[in-house]
Amino acid sequence: MTSTLSIAVIGAGYWGPNLARNFRSSEHWDLAAICDLDRARAEKLATSLGGIPVVTDLADVLADSSIDAVAIATPARTHHPIAMAALRAGKHVVVEKPLADSRELGEAMVREADERGLVLMADHTYCYTPAALRIRELVEAGELGDILFIDSVRINLGLIQPDVDVFWDLAPHDLSIMDFVLPGGLQTASVAAQGADPLGAGKACIGYLSMPLANGGVAHVHVNWLSPTKIRQVVIGGSRRTLVWDDLNPQQRLSVYDRGVDLAQQSATDRTAATVSYRLGDTWSPALPEREALSAMAAEFAASITEGRPARTDGRAGLRVLSALEAARGSLAQNGAPFAVTASPN
Amino acid sequence: MTSTLSIAVIGAGYWGPNLARNFRSSEHWDLAAICDLDRARAEKLATSLGGIPVVTDLADVLADSSIDAVAIATPARTHHPIAMAALRAGKHVVVEKPLADSRELGEAMVREADERGLVLMADHTYCYTPAALRIRELVEAGELGDILFIDSVRINLGLIQPDVDVFWDLAPHDLSIMDFVLPGGLQTASVAAQGADPLGAGKACIGYLSMPLANGGVAHVHVNWLSPTKIRQVVIGGSRRTLVWDDLNPQQRLSVYDRGVDLAQQSATDRTAATVSYRLGDTWSPALPEREALSAMAAEFAASITEGRPARTDGRAGLRVLSALEAARGSLAQNGAPFAVTASPN
Amino acid sequence: MTSTLSIAVIGAGYWGPNLARNFRSSEHWDLAAICDLDRARAEKLATSLGGIPVVTDLADVLADSSIDAVAIATPARTHHPIAMAALRAGKHVVVEKPLADSRELGEAMVREADERGLVLMADHTYCYTPAALRIRELVEAGELGDILFIDSVRINLGLIQPDVDVFWDLAPHDLSIMDFVLPGGLQTASVAAQGADPLGAGKACIGYLSMPLANGGVAHVHVNWLSPTKIRQVVIGGSRRTLVWDDLNPQQRLSVYDRGVDLAQQSATDRTAATVSYRLGDTWSPALPEREALSAMAAEFAASITEGRPARTDGRAGLRVLSALEAARGSLAQNGAPFAVTASPN
Amino acid sequence: MTSTLSIAVIGAGYWGPNLARNFRSSEHWDLAAICDLDRARAEKLATSLGGIPVVTDLADVLADSSIDAVAIATPARTHHPIAMAALRAGKHVVVEKPLADSRELGEAMVREADERGLVLMADHTYCYTPAALRIRELVEAGELGDILFIDSVRINLGLIQPDVDVFWDLAPHDLSIMDFVLPGGLQTASVAAQGADPLGAGKACIGYLSMPLANGGVAHVHVNWLSPTKIRQVVIGGSRRTLVWDDLNPQQRLSVYDRGVDLAQQSATDRTAATVSYRLGDTWSPALPEREALSAMAAEFAASITEGRPARTDGRAGLRVLSALEAARGSLAQNGAPFAVTASPN
Repeated sequence: MTSTLSIAVIGAGYWGPNLARNFRSSEHWDLAAICDLDRARAEKLATSLGGIPVVTDLADVLADSSIDAVAIATPARTHHPIAMAALRAGKHVVVEKPLADSRELGEAMVREADERGLVLMADHTYCYTPAALRIRELVEAGELGDILFIDSVRINLGLIQPDVDVFWDLAPHDLSIMDFVLPGGLQTASVAAQGADPLGAGKACIGYLSMPLANGGVAHVHVNWLSPTKIRQVVIGGSRRTLVWDDLNPQQRLSVYDRGVDLAQQSATDRTAATVSYRLGDTWSPALPEREALSAMAAEFAASITEGRPARTDGRAGLRVLSALEAARGSLAQNGAPFAVTASPN
Repeated sequence: MTSTLSIAVIGAGYWGPNLARNFRSSEHWDLAAICDLDRARAEKLATSLGGIPVVTDLADVLADSSIDAVAIATPARTHHPIAMAALRAGKHVVVEKPLADSRELGEAMVREADERGLVLMADHTYCYTPAALRIRELVEAGELGDILFIDSVRINLGLIQPDVDVFWDLAPHDLSIMDFVLPGGLQTASVAAQGADPLGAGKACIGYLSMPLANGGVAHVHVNWLSPTKIRQVVIGGSRRTLVWDDLNPQQRLSVYDRGVDLAQQSATDRTAATVSYRLGDTWSPALPEREALSAMAAEFAASITEGRPARTDGRAGLRVLSALEAARGSLAQNGAPFAVTASPN
Repeated sequence: MTSTLSIAVIGAGYWGPNLARNFRSSEHWDLAAICDLDRARAEKLATSLGGIPVVTDLADVLADSSIDAVAIATPARTHHPIAMAALRAGKHVVVEKPLADSRELGEAMVREADERGLVLMADHTYCYTPAALRIRELVEAGELGDILFIDSVRINLGLIQPDVDVFWDLAPHDLSIMDFVLPGGLQTASVAAQGADPLGAGKACIGYLSMPLANGGVAHVHVNWLSPTKIRQVVIGGSRRTLVWDDLNPQQRLSVYDRGVDLAQQSATDRTAATVSYRLGDTWSPALPEREALSAMAAEFAASITEGRPARTDGRAGLRVLSALEAARGSLAQNGAPFAVTASPN
Repeated sequence: MTSTLSIAVIGAGYWGPNLARNFRSSEHWDLAAICDLDRARAEKLATSLGGIPVVTDLADVLADSSIDAVAIATPARTHHPIAMAALRAGKHVVVEKPLADSRELGEAMVREADERGLVLMADHTYCYTPAALRIRELVEAGELGDILFIDSVRINLGLIQPDVDVFWDLAPHDLSIMDFVLPGGLQTASVAAQGADPLGAGKACIGYLSMPLANGGVAHVHVNWLSPTKIRQVVIGGSRRTLVWDDLNPQQRLSVYDRGVDLAQQSATDRTAATVSYRLGDTWSPALPEREALSAMAAEFAASITEGRPARTDGRAGLRVLSALEAARGSLAQNGAPFAVTASPN
């Protein structure tokens, strides 16, 4: 690495410190500034990182020609205006999930970046975990065969957010993972969403998403702020093998079950025998390196800029996630009936 | 126990042997006969139980006035004709789940039993596990508060059934548990069902059910024949406490989390602090007796006959399960849109 | 299998019913009689198996020339006289663990069987589980490399036995497993035993055994009647791979960790880096057939008789277990100092 | 908090950064300096904490009268000379475990601190985890009754240390926890140690310690550098209840089993019934606050200085751990026979 890029982190609230810490320690980046309207918050973060310049006015960042890129970690409704301003100032942009708070605004961001030849990247953090990277490799190599279903559960006691429901808070993680590991990304014609608000919080605190996949399969998401048990599990059923990602089991995050279901075997009339025959097949748990996801994300952002190519989780990936979330919103508005997904232009 | 009742088991296939073994060892019952069209199969079972009379013609059982009751463990489509014949012959009847293969036929069975003053019971086996019995007690005692959500997952590699889809094969377990533990039984206005058949089996092999509860809560079921990991877990979220039933963890099947989510706390603006405050609260795992569910079911069947009262899982409970399954079928037919549940007359 | 052998089960108490049930259902055996001094107990068992002849006098069994073998499931102190009588009557013998209540008596049994050309087998049940059989294959094939350590934990709340301490009650399981899977059997020069009797029961309720292995390795056993958590875990550390048998995890009983510790790597001075480098290596969990161990034990007993060869867990294996238990007794008597193992003549 | 104390951290290698980070963020402390012979290493650490003064000569720290205390995180063989120099310079001292590399040197440190009225504290980090603090409360309140046994397992793949064996590397954790939670501290008359070096590393890589407790109970430790599975589990069996601390299960670190073994029940002759009766009793898992142990350790160090009292893990606690380790060394030298513990003068 002969040269490094310079970046400013916009927003020092919940997620900004994680971004700042990782860009600070990345060999690919110089962390040039922390920008937040709340100077005290920005300074506390800057100090903890060994003294980084603090800025309270976004314009100062954008006017600084030595800064190559910005990382945006502000409330979702501000992603669009900040990103647009940054792109217009010639900065590469990475945005905390979700890319924007509507698909239409996200499309404008993608167009702007395209026209200016700048990188627009979605910080789909989970895609850069060693587990997700390995899953993508396994799927691409055909190890799982065709994907028959993908079921993602992400439940835990969590703060009821003031501005978003549980779908917009948590499901971007699940949807971005699906988009990352499915060949061709998350391509679904419609979304059926079931939400519940049993506490009268004014928004869904429990949510389910069902999305048909092209081959007759299904993708499903369960997100829940009210569960006392924490589960973060993705099951990917393939025609050859099936994979389970249990993110809370650090000693065995990934398990690959070396078997599929062979329809030809289904002619058996004896139920017991047939069931038992399914179970034979070894399980394999690949070793994963220990690496913080945001460190890999920061490296990918740098590489995409340096190599002049889209990031692995580029703006279009962010748009596919937004499209699914918008369709979910539409489904909720019509009581759970499937709602067509509007595909964004490529 | 001064007297015992006499029962015949109809069907010696998959489930019949379990019924026969439990009625055989019950202090409340005499196992009078095993009835199956396949004499060899019936005799094998009869011999293993120490020599029980074998019958191949149902009429012989029904004509035997010393037999008080029959337990039906034949294919679902035959439940209705066999049960009707038995009721008309004056026998009390317990039927393997599902009660019938349509709500309408189930209603006819309930009517017949009512008119004759006979017990019609659904063998909702899971309701008689020590875990389910304890959950019902806890809910009735108000330990969980209002039920906000109930989420049931039952997935495993399983035989693709020749006659039924995954909903009719597995979901009766989840629905009957919900019906058993929810105050007033499973009362839902509609069912949204998502099914997938990625193998081209001609029927859903993966299924999801969403059912709104009266208070804004939701009940959800995930059943799956294609999952290599076996999960049998029910989470019941209450306003006071939340309960998790992990049926595959014999050392701690039930966990009760002594906390709920207090909406008043939600004014906090600092996300991290609020999240952490949720987590404080002890977990409690009640000890459960070791008892086979079918043994308790057999005892309840005898008690309901002796005491002249409906069984805890009576025909009406079976009907509520059928109603949900039929609504699921309707929802599938209209691509997953919610389908109204037809309530059976009380 | 053109012919079957005939067997009587002696003892209808705790373990006898398991033996009887398995010989009853084995294709290799005819269960000819249940023998117990307590006729009622024997008859209850005989009836539950479909009607087996009951005998109360051992002499009647031994005088019956149609009976080829006996399975002894009586209290340990009676194993020797019953087995000796049976051998003298020309019967093949399988004995519940431990083989006898002293090494010397066990040796007499082995001699008697040898002189008469009869099979004397120890019912080391755990050796016939699919897990243990697979471990033995893996060790024999060199998959683990040299065995560096074997650590076995078997703890649970258990009845304080009237006649034996926790070592003689539980450790035969661990020792027999070690004897089965270690190449050449359990060969240790000495045993150091630590026991504790904190309740004043008059015997050790908690016990630890340490046994040096030939190559500088160690075998260790922890048995405990007072633990509220149930653990049955064997870890076998090899120079190539390490294996964990978690018998209470039916979904993943065996895990093989594809790595060893390479001493050459130990020159690293940076502690963190070296530690991390150890962790890379996949985990593999072989599928195991579902088979009851006693069924395989019964088949092995028949095969050893038919083929005129020692059983896999023959009397000598039983003797090696007894030798370790006796050395443990010696160690306890001298306050835990290592006590030499007396090898039995081959 | 009206005033803060000033501290220097000596040693910026493996553990020093953790100490420095926690003293840096403590409200009770000012982190005045990082001291290491290797200036580059010290500066890297100092920078990461926002710019702390760096010193390479210990004499400079000791000569600085504004510094109240030092935290020593250097190799164990240097603990004694550095601590003695610091005490003679009037500094309070906290020392990474083990307190010293021999009991005799540790005693000299304790004497020196006593004579000068300074605090000498052992950084027994695990004692300041929320779990250990809670266990101590439960034991003190009599919730467990008398302690019958305490069994600690700490195994994992780990670097083979150049200077110490597995006992001196890992067992200080287990011994210090035992010392912390047992009423009156770890009081054992002797230690039996079993070690194994199957790789020819020149020191024990696998170790077992057995220590009789006063009441007939036993304490046992299993430490192991060669295990591919990571286990950190302490079981404390009491006459009233038994507690399990599973440190790798963040969702349920502590489980308290509400039952003991009642010897009076042991007259039962029916083994099965008696075993089952043991199992009834609820399990309770207390909620624990989330707090880094070193933060609580730093607060305790400050409080003991301010209040002029011994720290909870004072030098004498460190000595008791050293005494056990020395006895273990003696036991190893005589092949595992129990070795008497030399009590240090109070």
